[in-house]
Amino acid sequence: MSLVLPTYDDVVHASATIKGVAHRTPVMTSRTADRLSGAQMFFKCENLQRMGAFKFRGGYNAIANLTPEQKRAGVITFSSGNHAQAIALSGRLLNVATIIIMPEDAPAAKKAATEEYGATVVTYDRYTQNRDDIARQMQEQTGMTLIPPYDHLHVIAGQGTAAKELIEDVGELDYLMVCLGGGGLLAGSALSAKALSPNCKVYGVEPEAGNDGQQSLRKGEVVRIEPPRSIADGALTLYLGQLTFGVIKRDVTDIVTVTDPQLVKTMKFFAERMKIVVEPTGCLGAAAILQGALAIPKDARVGVILSGGNVDLKEYAGFLSQP
Amino acid sequence: MSLVLPTYDDVVHASATIKGVAHRTPVMTSRTADRLSGAQMFFKCENLQRMGAFKFRGGYNAIANLTPEQKRAGVITFSSGNHAQAIALSGRLLNVATIIIMPEDAPAAKKAATEEYGATVVTYDRYTQNRDDIARQMQEQTGMTLIPPYDHLHVIAGQGTAAKELIEDVGELDYLMVCLGGGGLLAGSALSAKALSPNCKVYGVEPEAGNDGQQSLRKGEVVRIEPPRSIADGALTLYLGQLTFGVIKRDVTDIVTVTDPQLVKTMKFFAERMKIVVEPTGCLGAAAILQGALAIPKDARVGVILSGGNVDLKEYAGFLSQP
Repeated sequence: MSLVLPTYDDVVHASATIKGVAHRTPVMTSRTADRLSGAQMFFKCENLQRMGAFKFRGGYNAIANLTPEQKRAGVITFSSGNHAQAIALSGRLLNVATIIIMPEDAPAAKKAATEEYGATVVTYDRYTQNRDDIARQMQEQTGMTLIPPYDHLHVIAGQGTAAKELIEDVGELDYLMVCLGGGGLLAGSALSAKALSPNCKVYGVEPEAGNDGQQSLRKGEVVRIEPPRSIADGALTLYLGQLTFGVIKRDVTDIVTVTDPQLVKTMKFFAERMKIVVEPTGCLGAAAILQGALAIPKDARVGVILSGGNVDLKEYAGFLSQP
Repeated sequence: MSLVLPTYDDVVHASATIKGVAHRTPVMTSRTADRLSGAQMFFKCENLQRMGAFKFRGGYNAIANLTPEQKRAGVITFSSGNHAQAIALSGRLLNVATIIIMPEDAPAAKKAATEEYGATVVTYDRYTQNRDDIARQMQEQTGMTLIPPYDHLHVIAGQGTAAKELIEDVGELDYLMVCLGGGGLLAGSALSAKALSPNCKVYGVEPEAGNDGQQSLRKGEVVRIEPPRSIADGALTLYLGQLTFGVIKRDVTDIVTVTDPQLVKTMKFFAERMKIVVEPTGCLGAAAILQGALAIPKDARVGVILSGGNVDLKEYAGFLSQP
């Protein structure tokens, strides 16, 4: 079967759908970041998005596009955290019931927030159980619609609205750095960059321990890896989606990796110099530049998507205390 | 001798002076803050100001208003931290030499940042030495101009520009909550509020342990206290200025206090829910509302100045780890 990949038109449609519901988040700049990188950096602050991450864009767009009958039956999903909150909050706003399948070891703050938004949470063991199987089984039992965290046309289109806003706000870019888990944000961002800033090089950034995306791009097909261990808990996916990989292999320049210590340094930079809380996964794109994983020409215009700010405060304090 | 108090015209003049140099910082809102307070809260993010605090406004305005000869001779000041960085950075931008007299126990991050900006730092013991005496003595020896941290017309006028921008951006307010150390920010804010939102009640907020301002307002004259101990290191002043008190007793509704545990709770709120780093002193105004030190009517429009975000990361991590 041939896949129907999302297009920039889908992103434009998603923009209209989320308008007035999602925040048009600010773009921050930092003289210090520019001095350290030698570039002009533009940080799209999705940590300041509703529920603290870009995932709200895709989740809301996906539920909003359901038929009335689908909305009545409700939505089920699996997520390591932010997609869960996105679906839970979007469900509440659109009056759609939601069940979230979440790993047992997800940050406590994310579980609590998801339940606060009114969703039902079901947990599983990330190391022994396959979340896709659990989700499909529950879906069959309940008749609810499965909205997966990334491999979904309306989810990808929604995530693409962040890069669209960024480029609309600051103009064309030379580079766009995007964190990569399952690829929804990266694929959506690539669609927007290609349409609005055709010469922009789009990079995905993964944790070194979970570089399935990098391996997949090198091999030309989706590569599955063992469950990785990294502090970037939003990028621990084992494989890209079919839709996300379809867009990524066509539109993304390359995928680079950073280490956990580089993420911690970047997190500290954001707290100390820019006064913002960015979760480990949200630091991936910036770390690639600020910690030198990708060399860029002087004065290049570099967009970075700070994907989220949801991190358990105790864990966060531990990161900030590291030397 | 009769004092010439600063006026709103001085604030307007300062606005023009700092334009394009200081950031026009964003105003953030939070559904959670509104739900907790029952009010509509508007947070003026001076933690996102250059050098991380509102103090840049007053420092830059004061140095910019010096005569050419005064600029050539240089500037001296004393400060527990943010005013130091403000003078150091403003001196560098305006090509004016600066000496900063700073307590030995000021946060390491603040000392380092001050020296990074090119200032010379001289330290003293906050518990045994009087910084005013040291500063005046050095001033006599060097011929440099003393720009004190708050009791100075151009400093107060500069600080008033933050509230001016806030009210211009969000419209009239019912309440304006301002942290209070020496009173520069509070006096300047009161001038702007009186001019732009005449019915707005302006409150100063002090750490409970250092309530010299509250005592002074009650007594009708400047009261001096013993060196207080509080985590709000920017509000440990022992007495208000003559100029700041002159404006405060005329234009400020009242002064309330909050405890250190209330500041910690508020700091955690900003990190967890709003994803921003606010230093302890910067939490004073918000803590008064969110922790209930001041009761306000439902749906009141409340402006809060988040004065700064400069906090040593290890100390900050300690605050975030508290239960």
